[in-house]
Amino acid sequence: MFTDDPVRAAKPATSMPLSEELLWRMDAYWRAANYLTVGQIYLQDNPLLEVPLERRHIKPRLLGHWGTTTGLNFIYVHLNRLIKAHDLDMIYVIGPGHGGPGLVAQAYLEGSYTEVYPDIERDRHGMRRLFRQFSWPYGVPSHVAPETPGSIHEGGELGYSLAHAYGAAFDNPDLIVACIVGDGEAETGALATSWHSNKFLNPARDGAVLPILHLNGYKIANPTLLARITPDELGELFRGYGYEPLFVEGDDPAQVHRQLAAALDKALARIHGIQQAARHATDGQAPARARWPMIVFRTPKGWTGPKVVDGLPVEGTWRAHQVPLKDFDDPAHVRLLEDWLLSYRPHELFDADGRLRPELAELAPTGRRRMGANPHANGGVLLQPLTLPHFRDHAVRLAAPGGLEVESTRVLGRYLREVMRLNAQAGNFRLFGPDETASNRLQDVFEVTSKAWMATIEPVDEHLSPQGRVMEVLSEHLCQGWLEGYLLTGRHGLFSCYEAFIHIIDSMFNQHAKWLKTTRHIPWRAPIASLNYLLSSHVWRQDHNGFSHQDPGFLDHVANKKADVVRIYLPPDANCLLSVADHCLRSRNYVNVIVAGKQPEWQWLDIDAAARHCSTGAGVWTWASTDEGRDPEVVMACAGDVPTLETLAAVTLLREYAPDLRVRVVNVVDLMVLQPPGEHPHALSDVDFDELFTRDKPVIFAFHGYPGLIHRLAYRRHNHDNFHVRGYREEGTTTTPFDMTVMNNLDRYQLALDAILRVPRLSALASDATDRYWATMERHRLYISEHGEDLPEVAQWRWTMG
Amino acid sequence: MFTDDPVRAAKPATSMPLSEELLWRMDAYWRAANYLTVGQIYLQDNPLLEVPLERRHIKPRLLGHWGTTTGLNFIYVHLNRLIKAHDLDMIYVIGPGHGGPGLVAQAYLEGSYTEVYPDIERDRHGMRRLFRQFSWPYGVPSHVAPETPGSIHEGGELGYSLAHAYGAAFDNPDLIVACIVGDGEAETGALATSWHSNKFLNPARDGAVLPILHLNGYKIANPTLLARITPDELGELFRGYGYEPLFVEGDDPAQVHRQLAAALDKALARIHGIQQAARHATDGQAPARARWPMIVFRTPKGWTGPKVVDGLPVEGTWRAHQVPLKDFDDPAHVRLLEDWLLSYRPHELFDADGRLRPELAELAPTGRRRMGANPHANGGVLLQPLTLPHFRDHAVRLAAPGGLEVESTRVLGRYLREVMRLNAQAGNFRLFGPDETASNRLQDVFEVTSKAWMATIEPVDEHLSPQGRVMEVLSEHLCQGWLEGYLLTGRHGLFSCYEAFIHIIDSMFNQHAKWLKTTRHIPWRAPIASLNYLLSSHVWRQDHNGFSHQDPGFLDHVANKKADVVRIYLPPDANCLLSVADHCLRSRNYVNVIVAGKQPEWQWLDIDAAARHCSTGAGVWTWASTDEGRDPEVVMACAGDVPTLETLAAVTLLREYAPDLRVRVVNVVDLMVLQPPGEHPHALSDVDFDELFTRDKPVIFAFHGYPGLIHRLAYRRHNHDNFHVRGYREEGTTTTPFDMTVMNNLDRYQLALDAILRVPRLSALASDATDRYWATMERHRLYISEHGEDLPEVAQWRWTMG
Repeated sequence: MFTDDPVRAAKPATSMPLSEELLWRMDAYWRAANYLTVGQIYLQDNPLLEVPLERRHIKPRLLGHWGTTTGLNFIYVHLNRLIKAHDLDMIYVIGPGHGGPGLVAQAYLEGSYTEVYPDIERDRHGMRRLFRQFSWPYGVPSHVAPETPGSIHEGGELGYSLAHAYGAAFDNPDLIVACIVGDGEAETGALATSWHSNKFLNPARDGAVLPILHLNGYKIANPTLLARITPDELGELFRGYGYEPLFVEGDDPAQVHRQLAAALDKALARIHGIQQAARHATDGQAPARARWPMIVFRTPKGWTGPKVVDGLPVEGTWRAHQVPLKDFDDPAHVRLLEDWLLSYRPHELFDADGRLRPELAELAPTGRRRMGANPHANGGVLLQPLTLPHFRDHAVRLAAPGGLEVESTRVLGRYLREVMRLNAQAGNFRLFGPDETASNRLQDVFEVTSKAWMATIEPVDEHLSPQGRVMEVLSEHLCQGWLEGYLLTGRHGLFSCYEAFIHIIDSMFNQHAKWLKTTRHIPWRAPIASLNYLLSSHVWRQDHNGFSHQDPGFLDHVANKKADVVRIYLPPDANCLLSVADHCLRSRNYVNVIVAGKQPEWQWLDIDAAARHCSTGAGVWTWASTDEGRDPEVVMACAGDVPTLETLAAVTLLREYAPDLRVRVVNVVDLMVLQPPGEHPHALSDVDFDELFTRDKPVIFAFHGYPGLIHRLAYRRHNHDNFHVRGYREEGTTTTPFDMTVMNNLDRYQLALDAILRVPRLSALASDATDRYWATMERHRLYISEHGEDLPEVAQWRWTMG
Repeated sequence: MFTDDPVRAAKPATSMPLSEELLWRMDAYWRAANYLTVGQIYLQDNPLLEVPLERRHIKPRLLGHWGTTTGLNFIYVHLNRLIKAHDLDMIYVIGPGHGGPGLVAQAYLEGSYTEVYPDIERDRHGMRRLFRQFSWPYGVPSHVAPETPGSIHEGGELGYSLAHAYGAAFDNPDLIVACIVGDGEAETGALATSWHSNKFLNPARDGAVLPILHLNGYKIANPTLLARITPDELGELFRGYGYEPLFVEGDDPAQVHRQLAAALDKALARIHGIQQAARHATDGQAPARARWPMIVFRTPKGWTGPKVVDGLPVEGTWRAHQVPLKDFDDPAHVRLLEDWLLSYRPHELFDADGRLRPELAELAPTGRRRMGANPHANGGVLLQPLTLPHFRDHAVRLAAPGGLEVESTRVLGRYLREVMRLNAQAGNFRLFGPDETASNRLQDVFEVTSKAWMATIEPVDEHLSPQGRVMEVLSEHLCQGWLEGYLLTGRHGLFSCYEAFIHIIDSMFNQHAKWLKTTRHIPWRAPIASLNYLLSSHVWRQDHNGFSHQDPGFLDHVANKKADVVRIYLPPDANCLLSVADHCLRSRNYVNVIVAGKQPEWQWLDIDAAARHCSTGAGVWTWASTDEGRDPEVVMACAGDVPTLETLAAVTLLREYAPDLRVRVVNVVDLMVLQPPGEHPHALSDVDFDELFTRDKPVIFAFHGYPGLIHRLAYRRHNHDNFHVRGYREEGTTTTPFDMTVMNNLDRYQLALDAILRVPRLSALASDATDRYWATMERHRLYISEHGEDLPEVAQWRWTMG
């Protein structure tokens, strides 16, 4: 199963690749980074300690996290050595993102920081500004952030570093992603399953991930689990996850320098060995899964910081997590801080102007090899547009609205197959899904690719291969994290998911949307491909799986984020879905959410009409309306495939109930058109909105999601008080598809009754229509409870107007 | 570290506790359960196959999941043997909840099903109804569900079984929770970290969890990861997680019966050994962490089902996941189904009336020992109310509104300390939090208890102990899952969390809220304690951690759930927080969300006023108003502690700007009062609402969360068009606390300006007020960018009216 036997490396590595001289310089470089870290947290002036430290040099508010940074800095210096020695293409992902000042310090030392922020010069003036800006209003955030050069990972919300790292490595054969996993972060669910990503990394095609568990022992207020199990258990855990763990451990910097250098040399040799074996296999065999190396780096929290403050131990405890010295009204603390800063011997490190001494500066890689300047960490600069097929080529051909039934997502699957085919050479497009690609009817992609799988493949398996470009694992966290890492390094993708379970990554979506929002204001960050969701197996067609599978609330969640980042599409049929998907795959820097059904459903628009409809986002369906383009008595609005079906069925009922009623049907594809102008770029003008929805007529709005969302988006519109929204009201179980709409009052009978009751002219009909409604409901309930399936008139309903 | 050395049990267990006769009967019982499972999925009639099977006996819609059920049934039969042999108090948690028909079959066989559903009699008529109701409209859901006797876990959304199991075991020393983890589910993040729960289980005080990994090899469409790594890796993984894995593997039932019986005997002996050692330690030592047993149960997916259908292998592949035979227009498939059913030899199992033969029926435990009737799985029947301290005893004493500043959550911490103390004996209350109890200022609880911790404890550690009742782990998933399991088995708890990161468990909240909603309609399910969230470190005071830590959207998410299940409280000060917390801890069957700050903040209400205010949910603060109880010109409304502060500061500004303006201040504690009557039980009547907010005056509403939520809740109210809501609009970074409100236009200056601009009488002031506003903003920006902290007039602001 493995390319070779695991090397058990439970003992610390002991070889010595470092000369004493190099060791001294690396240690000095580390001290420089630590000095700059402490300076950022504490100082607003006197950056080079040119005069004795005073209270006024210290910031009034002390924000930041000290505990993790020296470890991060230590590793960074060693990665620099490795990059330089082997001309590596390497980026870092820092799980403990609150170690922000360390990474800023490193980018500053290597020069990549000043290149993108020229006002932070590499001298005493720049150093003062560097210190002052940190966690300062209008300065830079306290975490590794989009503003930090070289980062694709914020790390404020813990748990996603390793998934991001693997996402970055996929299809980047020459890239090595060094991923620092915090031992606190390692307790999160997302991280705990991310270790298994190694079963999806193909050493022949993909780059490498080098996980480094930063085992400094403590979280905010507690020890970490992985620091308090036996070393044997720790080794078994990582070997069980399929890695070869290499252990580095200590608190004497010189010893740890030697150990880490040896471990990194060993890890790199192993990575290269695995890759060479996979890439130069002469027998034509598919590459086998490798036992990749990872490093356990056990050093004290707050290493090199104050050992004891006010009689309590700090270094090596959770007390070092944030700012270990705070009370500078106490002059003794000012002295402690000064001693701490001087312990790095800054005058050995920086010249009188505050420039890093040349013998240290030359330790850093140069140009794009610097981790702060590696283009993979600013993926937009590498982004190549997808080669897209003509979506019209995949159109459903229909003679008239309601002309045939198809599974919309299956049609999309054929289009995606072509996307996959056309970009196979470029290797920059992947599909992601939690075991649901086929369940969501996208299986035609398997005609041109497979599911990536490096674990054992049995003869009975289908569509599994190390070369596959469909990523399936039963973890929404991994799908999301991998895709984010893939996008942030300049590639494209789509995540298809059961609608209800996309909530599993609500919080990851938040962080990605925040990242995108922030990058809008960072000129050097080039736009990346949008994060595209296809939510299928949606609330209205999870009648078979039941209540736990029914939740359309992700739309509400998404709608809270900044309007210039999010887009929500509810294509009512396959042709609209094609048009929307094509648009989304071309877009940049957005999160696009597409909701579309996978069950056979009636088709409404030919491809030209669909493309027009989707480009305006909402429009009157004149062929379904009976107001002859003017002055309707009621507007039947709909958004979503099932609500559209029920609305059109209601329209046919209304023709029977109230033949002369002037009904206008409005379909909304792009939900953001409802927002007030100024709130969202897609918003309809008030004039256009009123043109569609009238200023005073009742609007019966059948909506895919929770009704509140429509009200929230449209409450400022003139006619809002006449909006009567039907949608999911949190009722469900295992039942029939139509009964789902009945349970939630979104069914055609309800919608038709709503229309009649809201049109004053029809008041004479109200009582009869209500009776008829209840009789129908009674018949429905009796029928399904007796027959276990829907009324024939519902199941066999066809569009008959026009 | 361990109570004894791990027993390496990589080889199948081979001892033989079963006589041939018992083996035959257990196998027959298993066949009976399998027969009933297939019957539920397929049959609407002819349950005993008394006539040859015909198409009309088969349901028209075939829903359900076959693949996992025979394994679940197999294990259940064996657990029954164990329970009976040792008089065990045992419940099960079934991760692969889609195996619902298996569990229903088991409850039916043991009689617990008929006890709660008397119309499903234990005879041919009952059996017919049992079959027919499954996945049938108005019948029972396809998954293990609240309707399933013996279950505390739905299992539709995968990943939470093991956390639920541990939650159930905490403080239940005599309980054993058998937890079946699906190998698909095992890929999820939540499950991957749940294995670490063993570091929190105290064998002296808590019950035991017996995890059984149901390794049937496939998900919906793919193999599972854990089935395709080497057995060595699998063993290392579970030993690395701290377990002693016992392996059971095969497809020959007789062999597997013997293996599983032996493995269970071994596991039980080990559990008892661990517990005895911990409970009867003579040296007074704290119990050590144990290496608990777990079982890897590797059997074919769809075991005993069709081996091949239409030429494709089914048993032992992913094709067995759902319904393996579907096309009954093909008479050959009808025959296949009949053969499949007959392969269980039903006439050996059931008598002519459809009753399970007595020699089989006697294999089941009796009474409350039956897993379908164990009261722990219907926790409400065991629920004892908490002994609560008088919350008034912990009140902040203040002479007048704005009389002092305190950290509200710290006050709550003192109250919770007393809750902890008063219920220590009962052992039925725990606090849960992801490493944030102290960070959220609840640390006074550590005066009476500690944090539960079974891993190594070092001298430097504080408040860690095997006896602790505060559950801290850096996994929101674990906190949530443990608490759910704890509540569902009849205990009480509170989960304190950073507001932004509670989104990590959005989806788990969904499932719990759905569970609670469903149980409202199940008479035999007794009410359980509410799930209480304390969200602190909230959006407005995460200025130091930055944008990633700022998200108030959980409120929107919660508000989507059924009104009879969810409650949202925004206490503006410590006394209100006490009153709300007391109310929540007494409540049943709700999800209560409390948002409260941890930073020093001004206090407004004495305890009597606070209790009155919280009981009405919203009210006029006359002491802050200048309308003398009548006819205000503007209503300044607020919900949340920071919005309340800004509103009151705005009121003092208004007194200066427009001294004769009649301002009414309305504070909302209970957000659900805003909903229209009929939508939520807490809703204010329209009369009361209008009384508070007027029917026609401008309402400047300062809200803690996204403004859209207020519009969504209040859009049907008369005065809604005059509501101008300020709240979080997704702007943030690392900055000062006050700048957070400025970035989002929630600051006092904005609110005061809003009021002036909305009162027509003040139009003459508008231009000057606007100028003044912008000048102030400019001064603010300059000051914080120069000084790094807020304007003195803001930082030192005090309430001066009244």
